[in-house]
Amino acid sequence: MTQPTDWLATLQAVNQTAALHRWCGIQVLRADPGEADVGLAWRPDLGQHTGFLHAGLMGAMIETAGGYAAATLVGQVVASHYSVNCLRPAVGDSFVARARVVKPGKQQTFTACDLFAINDGKETLVATGETVLLAVVA
Amino acid sequence: MTQPTDWLATLQAVNQTAALHRWCGIQVLRADPGEADVGLAWRPDLGQHTGFLHAGLMGAMIETAGGYAAATLVGQVVASHYSVNCLRPAVGDSFVARARVVKPGKQQTFTACDLFAINDGKETLVATGETVLLAVVA
Amino acid sequence: MTQPTDWLATLQAVNQTAALHRWCGIQVLRADPGEADVGLAWRPDLGQHTGFLHAGLMGAMIETAGGYAAATLVGQVVASHYSVNCLRPAVGDSFVARARVVKPGKQQTFTACDLFAINDGKETLVATGETVLLAVVA
Amino acid sequence: MTQPTDWLATLQAVNQTAALHRWCGIQVLRADPGEADVGLAWRPDLGQHTGFLHAGLMGAMIETAGGYAAATLVGQVVASHYSVNCLRPAVGDSFVARARVVKPGKQQTFTACDLFAINDGKETLVATGETVLLAVVA
Repeated sequence: MTQPTDWLATLQAVNQTAALHRWCGIQVLRADPGEADVGLAWRPDLGQHTGFLHAGLMGAMIETAGGYAAATLVGQVVASHYSVNCLRPAVGDSFVARARVVKPGKQQTFTACDLFAINDGKETLVATGETVLLAVVA
Repeated sequence: MTQPTDWLATLQAVNQTAALHRWCGIQVLRADPGEADVGLAWRPDLGQHTGFLHAGLMGAMIETAGGYAAATLVGQVVASHYSVNCLRPAVGDSFVARARVVKPGKQQTFTACDLFAINDGKETLVATGETVLLAVVA
Repeated sequence: MTQPTDWLATLQAVNQTAALHRWCGIQVLRADPGEADVGLAWRPDLGQHTGFLHAGLMGAMIETAGGYAAATLVGQVVASHYSVNCLRPAVGDSFVARARVVKPGKQQTFTACDLFAINDGKETLVATGETVLLAVVA
Repeated sequence: MTQPTDWLATLQAVNQTAALHRWCGIQVLRADPGEADVGLAWRPDLGQHTGFLHAGLMGAMIETAGGYAAATLVGQVVASHYSVNCLRPAVGDSFVARARVVKPGKQQTFTACDLFAINDGKETLVATGETVLLAVVA
């Protein structure tokens, strides 16, 4: 396929087609070859039992950022495996997941991601994760 | 602590305190010592780009069911690590995640979970996952 | 390819081509469509710092059994990802890893495995693990 | 406990107590607070079916380096979970696993590791991995 010249605009358009992202507010903040960042503003209805960001949404951010990072190098992909390490309580005004491609491939692409909570502009690493993406065979 | 005599009612009450669960509709369907099932009815706003259940919500169900299964044996826990294998497109009228404790522990509890899509009453395994829970030290 | 009629003999022959297996003694004990067991007799030189079976060899058994289980359904594969949960000290006269295919696929095959320590004929679950295998494209 | 003043010498002494390491040749190359590298020289008897470094030994290096990195910050630990991503064929004259602590903790310590094959002095990333370590309660 012809590679987009503007990955940020392309992935922002793709991102708007994900219904869950429209509801919870996951946005594409940055996209460069092999890298993508997604952001999410905190709202109380995104929380788990103790009021922190729900681990499922931490995973959603990690898996989404990983997929977008992979797409910049290998085109359309689907997640086949992802994992989340919950390092610290996910408390913040907003959150950003920064993913990078570790190894692109025709069959599989491996990505890694750091998830930060942002409080008053200060970033704290609250989770790390990995996503393995499978190329969609046309 | 005194063990609840009715795990289902206890966990259903806990589940209502999770804001994300109230929004998306994650419910506790079953709870027995070392096991818990959570369910979710499909709605289009739970979807990802292609309209299937979002992988982040698959993870939310797996991690939630694992935590509830662990709680029946070891009390209050927090997830420290979870992983999701996306086996088939998550398309269904509803979904059920069935978790079981693989190994309880004073420090860590290991759980495994199968996630099924239900279509016209027929169950299809769409994902598997693991959650490692850490005991909350009072 | 023509499927072998005797998976046990086929995989035992394959297993003898793995140099590490010849040294440490990993053997194929059973192979049926979608399932394979590998065994290992304890020797002190297989140990880690405290004298238990080294976690790397636990992984070797899990990844090997998963690969053999996958091969019975999809032919030649290579491991792309595996994980190991260390549940209990791996102490035994011998060890057996029992793997099963969770989902075969043209691109990826997912397997799960239980690793048991055997003491005086009694089996104890000491680890669980998962292996994702990629089909080798001829 | 009193922290060692020379982590490299301390961990090299510990490493010699692991029988598998003495056989296969896993050595501690570097140790600093929160970081550790282990090395392994290639020998044909460390191989799998196609003659590459066995994935089990890749895991052994990743889990060992992660454990040593953790020990520099939190003292005695045991691995509770590790995972390995096999990115490229593990072919080299020698191999080095470089681990770093992502998050130390009183209960759990999270580490990440890159595994490189070295050919004629040139390093190629062949695997990545994560190890979760549990503090040994005295």
